[in-house]
Amino acid sequence: MRQAWGVAQRPLGKPKLDAFLFKEEPIREIGVGEVLLETLYLGIAPVMRMYMMDPAKTGIVTGEAPLAIGDTIHGRGVARVIESRHDDYAVGDVVQGQLGWQTHKISSMSAGERFLRVTEHDLSYALAVRILSMTGLTAYTSWRYRCDPKPRETVMVTGAAGGVGHMIVQLAKADGLRVIGVAGGPDKCAIVRDLGADAVIDYKNEDVGARLDALAPDGLDIYYDNVGGEILMAALDRLAMGARVLLCGSISEYGRSEPFGLTNYTRLRRAEADMRGYFVYNHLHRFDEMVSELSGMIRTGTMRPLIDELVGFDKMPEALIGVYDGTNVGTRCVKVKLDD
Amino acid sequence: MRQAWGVAQRPLGKPKLDAFLFKEEPIREIGVGEVLLETLYLGIAPVMRMYMMDPAKTGIVTGEAPLAIGDTIHGRGVARVIESRHDDYAVGDVVQGQLGWQTHKISSMSAGERFLRVTEHDLSYALAVRILSMTGLTAYTSWRYRCDPKPRETVMVTGAAGGVGHMIVQLAKADGLRVIGVAGGPDKCAIVRDLGADAVIDYKNEDVGARLDALAPDGLDIYYDNVGGEILMAALDRLAMGARVLLCGSISEYGRSEPFGLTNYTRLRRAEADMRGYFVYNHLHRFDEMVSELSGMIRTGTMRPLIDELVGFDKMPEALIGVYDGTNVGTRCVKVKLDD
Repeated sequence: MRQAWGVAQRPLGKPKLDAFLFKEEPIREIGVGEVLLETLYLGIAPVMRMYMMDPAKTGIVTGEAPLAIGDTIHGRGVARVIESRHDDYAVGDVVQGQLGWQTHKISSMSAGERFLRVTEHDLSYALAVRILSMTGLTAYTSWRYRCDPKPRETVMVTGAAGGVGHMIVQLAKADGLRVIGVAGGPDKCAIVRDLGADAVIDYKNEDVGARLDALAPDGLDIYYDNVGGEILMAALDRLAMGARVLLCGSISEYGRSEPFGLTNYTRLRRAEADMRGYFVYNHLHRFDEMVSELSGMIRTGTMRPLIDELVGFDKMPEALIGVYDGTNVGTRCVKVKLDD
Repeated sequence: MRQAWGVAQRPLGKPKLDAFLFKEEPIREIGVGEVLLETLYLGIAPVMRMYMMDPAKTGIVTGEAPLAIGDTIHGRGVARVIESRHDDYAVGDVVQGQLGWQTHKISSMSAGERFLRVTEHDLSYALAVRILSMTGLTAYTSWRYRCDPKPRETVMVTGAAGGVGHMIVQLAKADGLRVIGVAGGPDKCAIVRDLGADAVIDYKNEDVGARLDALAPDGLDIYYDNVGGEILMAALDRLAMGARVLLCGSISEYGRSEPFGLTNYTRLRRAEADMRGYFVYNHLHRFDEMVSELSGMIRTGTMRPLIDELVGFDKMPEALIGVYDGTNVGTRCVKVKLDD
């Protein structure tokens, strides 16, 4: 039987359990040119809430097809080929790509699904598939190709205990920057300090603007934004000349019923600063480069990956809800196939 | 007698005549190291309304000192030295710099006033001082150093009949781009078309978004923003991959009593686009380069300057008010010394 999670209703604000629909159905025979994939892991990303919404109402383009009520939610993960009538794939091959929130998928491995082969590394296989993934690609290429980091610059990273953020903290330290990490609560802040951040701001218990005034009186050279909203505004008010603001995510805004309006974007003018968008699908051709760089850093200990793994396909909804509550530490994923 | 315009009251929304205070007083003797300047021309720029506001309330940093009620309004222009006890300046020298809204200024020519010598060109002197000025420096350096223009790209320019905008239209055409000019009303649109724009949108009578959908179905490569507000949002919704949004001005926002909130800045992500601030004072070292480039273009007819000149120092308040009503065509200035 194939199990899947679909859209029961469009989430308003933060997603709740009643937004998710559990489905179960028999698996059909595969046809010529198709494979049957068995899901091993699924990644959890804030954008998944957007997949569940009505794009005609939100106007948000996610890079994935709009979903109707009842449709299986989009999601990327790692799967093993367990049946194949496709010339290029054999039983046992492991791939990562667009699987959806389901235990099995029949696929013709079309270009649109953007499947990539997962090869064995000298690193543990499980580590590789959870870090050397879209999350790793996002962190590595956004930092390397869109932030223009320079040694001794000051960078602030929000979501610093999160999937992308914890890697940015370590990439920035490796490049010789001074890192201010922002996270919620003392436990996460301790983790961020342990990753090497020079200073940490607990946004749940501290005034980010006031702390920034003290920590970076000359302003920020880079702000790596995973949250948007008021913290983005606090950063825009404190930019050094020529600063870069990298827009990776805006999780603090996703859960609002009213759209957030950025009233101080013109602060970019006085600082002659850039606010830069980032879209991971532009960087797929750098996947091998990312694997090589990050696995090298992991091997030497320059990069310590944080993996936040939930076990069991039934945990999918709460795994996503938890990201909006900030419960995850590091890259969140769900182990779907338990005996693997 | 020295005549001056000061701040009578802080403008709310668009400035009105009662915000301006006329002052007249005798001119004192100059001291050692000082010169007496007689104002020939004053430029008019939207930012002047911001000078008049209370920065403690607006939080806006203009690059000039805050003004108290009664203080003379900041303004740059061209003046002639008519008395001198300064070693570096002789009677008859012409300079441009921070004069304020006044007919005479006693100055020690300090670095903070950023005076530049106006030299004679083979172009008419009057043309030179009104185009080869901060307005020309803004247009030339923002385009050359912050927009990364490439031939055959599509650029939209707002305020396309305005001081900076009409130069951007022509700089872009000279660089081989396709230019969509945005201006208010049929008369200004005709002027923009005459400057060489490939297409024109009349924002007062047309739906900018709908026209953009038709004119640039693949999106904008560059949006040169002189207005902010809803047109900026329409542009952000229609960016080509790798687009640049140059923030020069946001005149549509200045006159609002509530701050404008940009709700779709995250559109930069999907297009991996940049929103770039620009600050003319970063580019003062390029003044000679600008004079050389623009005067060359003017000589060959590649650049046709539009000058919107009001005559008489009494016209200063209405000259600024008119900029907010969009009455100017090209670079607005006021001829202060009538018999020059």
